[in-house]
Amino acid sequence: MENTMPYPKNAWYVAGWERNLNEGEPIAMSILDEPLVIYRAQGTGRLVVLEDRCVHRFAPLSLGKCEGERIRCGYHGLLFDSDGKLLGIPGQDLIPSQANVRCYPAVFKHSWIWVWMGNPALADEALIPPATGYDNPDWVLGHGDLDYQASGELANDNLLDFSHVPYIHAESFALGDSYANERPKVTAVERGIRVERWTLNIMGTATAPRPEDNLVDHWVSYDFLVPGIMLLWSGMYPAGTAQSLNFEKPDYSQAVGVSIDSHMVTPMTSRTARYYYIGGPLRGQGDEAVRDLRLRIQAKAFAEDKRIIEAQQRVIDRMPGKQMMPTAHDLAVTMYNRVVERLIRESGTAERVA
Amino acid sequence: MENTMPYPKNAWYVAGWERNLNEGEPIAMSILDEPLVIYRAQGTGRLVVLEDRCVHRFAPLSLGKCEGERIRCGYHGLLFDSDGKLLGIPGQDLIPSQANVRCYPAVFKHSWIWVWMGNPALADEALIPPATGYDNPDWVLGHGDLDYQASGELANDNLLDFSHVPYIHAESFALGDSYANERPKVTAVERGIRVERWTLNIMGTATAPRPEDNLVDHWVSYDFLVPGIMLLWSGMYPAGTAQSLNFEKPDYSQAVGVSIDSHMVTPMTSRTARYYYIGGPLRGQGDEAVRDLRLRIQAKAFAEDKRIIEAQQRVIDRMPGKQMMPTAHDLAVTMYNRVVERLIRESGTAERVA
Amino acid sequence: MENTMPYPKNAWYVAGWERNLNEGEPIAMSILDEPLVIYRAQGTGRLVVLEDRCVHRFAPLSLGKCEGERIRCGYHGLLFDSDGKLLGIPGQDLIPSQANVRCYPAVFKHSWIWVWMGNPALADEALIPPATGYDNPDWVLGHGDLDYQASGELANDNLLDFSHVPYIHAESFALGDSYANERPKVTAVERGIRVERWTLNIMGTATAPRPEDNLVDHWVSYDFLVPGIMLLWSGMYPAGTAQSLNFEKPDYSQAVGVSIDSHMVTPMTSRTARYYYIGGPLRGQGDEAVRDLRLRIQAKAFAEDKRIIEAQQRVIDRMPGKQMMPTAHDLAVTMYNRVVERLIRESGTAERVA
Repeated sequence: MENTMPYPKNAWYVAGWERNLNEGEPIAMSILDEPLVIYRAQGTGRLVVLEDRCVHRFAPLSLGKCEGERIRCGYHGLLFDSDGKLLGIPGQDLIPSQANVRCYPAVFKHSWIWVWMGNPALADEALIPPATGYDNPDWVLGHGDLDYQASGELANDNLLDFSHVPYIHAESFALGDSYANERPKVTAVERGIRVERWTLNIMGTATAPRPEDNLVDHWVSYDFLVPGIMLLWSGMYPAGTAQSLNFEKPDYSQAVGVSIDSHMVTPMTSRTARYYYIGGPLRGQGDEAVRDLRLRIQAKAFAEDKRIIEAQQRVIDRMPGKQMMPTAHDLAVTMYNRVVERLIRESGTAERVA
Repeated sequence: MENTMPYPKNAWYVAGWERNLNEGEPIAMSILDEPLVIYRAQGTGRLVVLEDRCVHRFAPLSLGKCEGERIRCGYHGLLFDSDGKLLGIPGQDLIPSQANVRCYPAVFKHSWIWVWMGNPALADEALIPPATGYDNPDWVLGHGDLDYQASGELANDNLLDFSHVPYIHAESFALGDSYANERPKVTAVERGIRVERWTLNIMGTATAPRPEDNLVDHWVSYDFLVPGIMLLWSGMYPAGTAQSLNFEKPDYSQAVGVSIDSHMVTPMTSRTARYYYIGGPLRGQGDEAVRDLRLRIQAKAFAEDKRIIEAQQRVIDRMPGKQMMPTAHDLAVTMYNRVVERLIRESGTAERVA
Repeated sequence: MENTMPYPKNAWYVAGWERNLNEGEPIAMSILDEPLVIYRAQGTGRLVVLEDRCVHRFAPLSLGKCEGERIRCGYHGLLFDSDGKLLGIPGQDLIPSQANVRCYPAVFKHSWIWVWMGNPALADEALIPPATGYDNPDWVLGHGDLDYQASGELANDNLLDFSHVPYIHAESFALGDSYANERPKVTAVERGIRVERWTLNIMGTATAPRPEDNLVDHWVSYDFLVPGIMLLWSGMYPAGTAQSLNFEKPDYSQAVGVSIDSHMVTPMTSRTARYYYIGGPLRGQGDEAVRDLRLRIQAKAFAEDKRIIEAQQRVIDRMPGKQMMPTAHDLAVTMYNRVVERLIRESGTAERVA
């Protein structure tokens, strides 16, 4: 079955949390509707990602058992190497040389398991976006995940256009109307887009309150990168900073409170996605209490997103032919989707080879 | 997507109970597989029914918020007037003039919310069937509703042929075999059919018991009108009345117990329907105790119908090609379906315009 | 709708347990995606199996009521004879002569209800496989059943290839690696195949432990017959017996512990199957305790099978085009499937008549 999901295969996708993968305990995951078995080899601890379907009778290998670096199917005992090569069939000497399962390049990085879904020859670790793992000592970070009964694209759209914040998140993030009334600066970056915005003279935010009653200028900037990763940082600055910087990008040193977020929307199937998030304050500008306050508010806000995104999916599925009407706020959505289309086109040949 | 459900769009459909609709609190409903948002405008209390799908990214407007007569999408804040016209896009001055959601003519009448699903230019309130709202002071009325996991047509068929009563409802309505063994009089009426029947010399019915041991003649008459409304009245008369009237229609004054029922089967999707019912005795010939007895027995009887109708739907869906075999009792079904077909044909042009 | 399931219709299928069918209480069952109503006639106790769909409005007759040998539809009271002939329509004198429901040949045998799904003229009770009913006095037998959310074919494949036993059932049957490393003898029999195997010098099995510390030779033989019946017997013999018999089939008399099993996989729909099983020791070589031990271990083992077979089905349904890779152990699967294909071909004409 051809992948018809609007994603380039030649990209790194988050397939789970590094720390949830125990040595010798295979787990099942789906990315782009491809079933994957993921395990950490016994002994070496090496990360292995294979097609989750035995060549023999299509039992999922994730129900099998690890044997060192290898995995044995739990149904009739076929043994596969960590590169997917069929090594053994119980009771049979001849091993067909073509009978392998697909092996996916995979690495641990930034607390996540990353899987390359396209041509293995093109898998370049330098293409893994510079996320911030939750064990990065410069930050005080928490993390979580949730599942959408909706396509990853709808979740991406949500993250690409924060004009929804005053409506969906009026009671969680409580960031005020300016997110809808004013447009951020949107620029192209390598494999994605950048969104930047100053909000002036506010009393802090729900996730970063300023009890001292001082107004602040609030900076938010994020890169949204293929295939669905958001790398965001935000900072509170003394009122007047934005103007004094001529509304350009500030740096951390002037801030009175900086936070970072790394989120990833993994498209599992065409109608399911998993949302992974890591975030928290810069160490010294916030502590575990700030981190936990952020996590509580995010849990509420992401449930608000989930409710409307899943409802949106149900409407779309009822009336598949209808055309959406973009607004000015969709600039980032449109620019990002063009990057996606270009990467799908570019990776077309490689994918056919893969 | 074309409506392929066997219903004329140019008709009034019941979309809910008037009293369940609170000012400023939008609700979602589906009729003929079209998603609707229904609200009572703040301030004026005016009834508004719109397409439940924002033009922008297809979020359902029913997750939005009322602002006076208007409704604002809960996702990115687009504002719609009560006629479906797009009035505002946050952060954008230009409002595309074609970007409206469909507005459906709607009125409160007889305790119900009625929605016209076809060409608005043809929406004529005089076409709303003369149901009896549960607040009609001449009657002591109760009401209820239930959902079928089956098409509205199967529920209509059930109401059009009471020969099922001795079989399905042997232990609830307990009306005896004559409903199966004798055929009622069936005649054409405007936009529907009329079914009339005398049952002679019975001991009352479960919903209208005659403890005094006197035999009665029992009259039942109902109009079944497009798109699925049943307006029924029944009365107990001293034995011999039917004969003395030459088996013609009696009037209320001679009765020893008259009841009225207004029921509506609303087709939500091709496989779901909602059944609304109102009923009870004529004030003076019955009280709250009679009304409540009727409601208890009806709740049991409608559960009996639901069980067999949903089973029927499952059988039909397994074997979609099979032809049913009509019986003599299907006269009313057949006559009613011809009216439906004619109205679908007649409203064809209008619907294409709508 | 044509039957496209890979089963010959001209065969006997198990439709339930004889003792679960109470006189006058119809039950519903599906075989080969055909809905069946099954009842034991009142008075005579005769077994009747009819199409579970009234000719009138397709209500399932299994929601109706028995009247002696007959069944009356629970919706509008149509009455059918035990051969499916329409006998009565309430309120209508003329009974269309073609308006019958299909009648299926059916018999009680070996504790089961057997139904012939093909041409009734070819229904020959001699074709019912010689299963062993749980009331056979020569054996001490238990029984059970479970449902698969998977095709019957996948369950058959499982039973045709015991090389899965060391992997799936390592902790239940615990039969050792030889089932995977050595191949059994597979031969053709009438309407199926026979699988035979000696396992030498073992300490007994989980279901037939040998506490006395004596090694035994273990014999297992089963016929797997169309449309999915497994007739198995196994025996423990003093070590050396296999060799002394030149690895031919032993008989019961030399055994120190013989058990028998009769299992049937009934294909209900293309994605659901019911698994019926009867088994236990030869009376005198085992008692109720042995029978119950077997049942407990089988319940665990069948849950192990169910887990992997249902997972296999889900993988197949996600990637319908893929080709499986047979191994040497699939000889019995392949031979059995050829018998199935031949019987489907041979019964083609008869089925079109039926």
